[in-house]
Amino acid sequence: MHSGSHRTKGSLVIGLDLGGTKIAAGVVASTGKLLSSIRLPTPASGVRRDLGALHDAARAAAVAAQVPWRTIRAIGVGVPGAFDPQTGTVWAPNLPGWKKVPLGRELGRALNHPVFVEGDRNVQALAEAWRGAGGGRVLNMVFLTVGTGIGAGLILDGRLVPGTRGVAGAAGWMAVEGIWRPIYGRVGCLEAEGAGPAVARLAQMKLRSSPSSLIRKLAANRPITAEAVAEAARGGDQTARNVLKEAGANLGRGVASIVSLLNPELVVIGGGLAGVGELILAPLRRAALQWGQPLASRQVRIVRSRLGGDAGVLGAARYAFIQLEEKN
Amino acid sequence: MHSGSHRTKGSLVIGLDLGGTKIAAGVVASTGKLLSSIRLPTPASGVRRDLGALHDAARAAAVAAQVPWRTIRAIGVGVPGAFDPQTGTVWAPNLPGWKKVPLGRELGRALNHPVFVEGDRNVQALAEAWRGAGGGRVLNMVFLTVGTGIGAGLILDGRLVPGTRGVAGAAGWMAVEGIWRPIYGRVGCLEAEGAGPAVARLAQMKLRSSPSSLIRKLAANRPITAEAVAEAARGGDQTARNVLKEAGANLGRGVASIVSLLNPELVVIGGGLAGVGELILAPLRRAALQWGQPLASRQVRIVRSRLGGDAGVLGAARYAFIQLEEKN
Repeated sequence: MHSGSHRTKGSLVIGLDLGGTKIAAGVVASTGKLLSSIRLPTPASGVRRDLGALHDAARAAAVAAQVPWRTIRAIGVGVPGAFDPQTGTVWAPNLPGWKKVPLGRELGRALNHPVFVEGDRNVQALAEAWRGAGGGRVLNMVFLTVGTGIGAGLILDGRLVPGTRGVAGAAGWMAVEGIWRPIYGRVGCLEAEGAGPAVARLAQMKLRSSPSSLIRKLAANRPITAEAVAEAARGGDQTARNVLKEAGANLGRGVASIVSLLNPELVVIGGGLAGVGELILAPLRRAALQWGQPLASRQVRIVRSRLGGDAGVLGAARYAFIQLEEKN
Repeated sequence: MHSGSHRTKGSLVIGLDLGGTKIAAGVVASTGKLLSSIRLPTPASGVRRDLGALHDAARAAAVAAQVPWRTIRAIGVGVPGAFDPQTGTVWAPNLPGWKKVPLGRELGRALNHPVFVEGDRNVQALAEAWRGAGGGRVLNMVFLTVGTGIGAGLILDGRLVPGTRGVAGAAGWMAVEGIWRPIYGRVGCLEAEGAGPAVARLAQMKLRSSPSSLIRKLAANRPITAEAVAEAARGGDQTARNVLKEAGANLGRGVASIVSLLNPELVVIGGGLAGVGELILAPLRRAALQWGQPLASRQVRIVRSRLGGDAGVLGAARYAFIQLEEKN
């Protein structure tokens, strides 16, 4: 990504990160410096109350940073879903009532500043390119988040690629297996083979032949989770490590498809499962190299996300800066 | 793609299409009008002789269009391989000697005009967006060529996406099956399941239980080809139609992955196999809708290429116009 130009130099924006359970907000300088960082719970009981909480979070971020409201140039918001550029509305399937919500217009009116909205995967990709693994210099980068679900944010030729209706990056739907398993009432592919629930399912299968695995103890009598598998693997449990190896290889085949199609210089793996580090990244890299187009897969670097809990705020702020550069 | 701006209005460029067996060339106006169209055989016996033929083709195109050489603003060239923007060189695996050839520099010196080089899939995508199925208005389009091999050209947010080293669009390597078959000494995926050789292989298998199929007669005693299958299918042969249905479904699963990742508004299918039309496009569309991310796959249009043999020349010319707009 190109660094901020003179047009926004010295400017301040607010980044808002709307999540299913919490809202994060902060004032961010054009250098990427975070001047405040606050958290509120997401009401998640209807659009009105969520909008009110977003409004309060933005105001609180300015107060916490001790900057006058008029010095804020714009607000960027990352949403847990898609922003449709054709209608200017947000669709967030896991938040009650969030269908075709004109978030930018509503919040802009309430806050009296321009508000720019984008999907959370996309703003996280921008954050990672700007202040994370991309180091502010990357032109072609794929951010792949692997948690309960799988999704991607694409930066190609230095620009975010949201797709025609804002749903680009739905990498969880990409094929990795001939026999695709049912998921979310339809069918899955990369998501069904490499996300958190796949790790839990693989562990469940392997435990039949390895009943003494540490996974069983960590899960106690509750259902097995990806977290229990990750913890057992860190504790040296071989069954858990084999599960992560298999999930990593499945992820790597998905990454191979993405790398063949887009020829990025960098793939950044984020989300909960990236937390186990090399236990999943090493088999992922091997599979990507094995199955991808040779020129593309030999050149790509595949690394773990470098940003923590403020990635959403930083990315939303970055998006606002980019929009200010382009529109003003 | 945005239409040509005032900067190139009224300008003329030459489009060159370097193929494995022939070179096509033509003078093209900024409106997209083709003022001449010539063909030469590709020497394919070393870089020197191929460069000489490209030079001759460009000169002949200007003569045929009856325009003075000095009125040509630039030359665009589409090459059967990849143009690496980092080294400015061409890699064309099927042409003897074409490894790291600084084509733009060499040809530019010989022709005394700026020369802009890009991969053939990419220039075909530009042509299709400009004067073909994209109708000059499409912002997010994937051009997928299906012949002996499979490859894609990507136009996202109105701009060509060549990738870090010019190998983006290697869609033939994308996963569509768990059991991937050997191909080109490595492994295949979409290409192994949906390209011409896959059609021939599927036909070979089905002929065991349908020995009276028209395919057998058309192939006579020679090996079965995709062309024979296509001809038999057009003649109403049910075995051939079933083969195309299966190949189309495989292609559709690859298209589903692409559509989920990129959310284009339009997918254009070109190349030899697209010639059979709905016999392969209908099952392709069904599979893309079945397996793709629902929002993305419901919105995308999947159509056949509208351009003929001059697509390479038009696309190379379009690429030159775009480069002139951006660089001057």
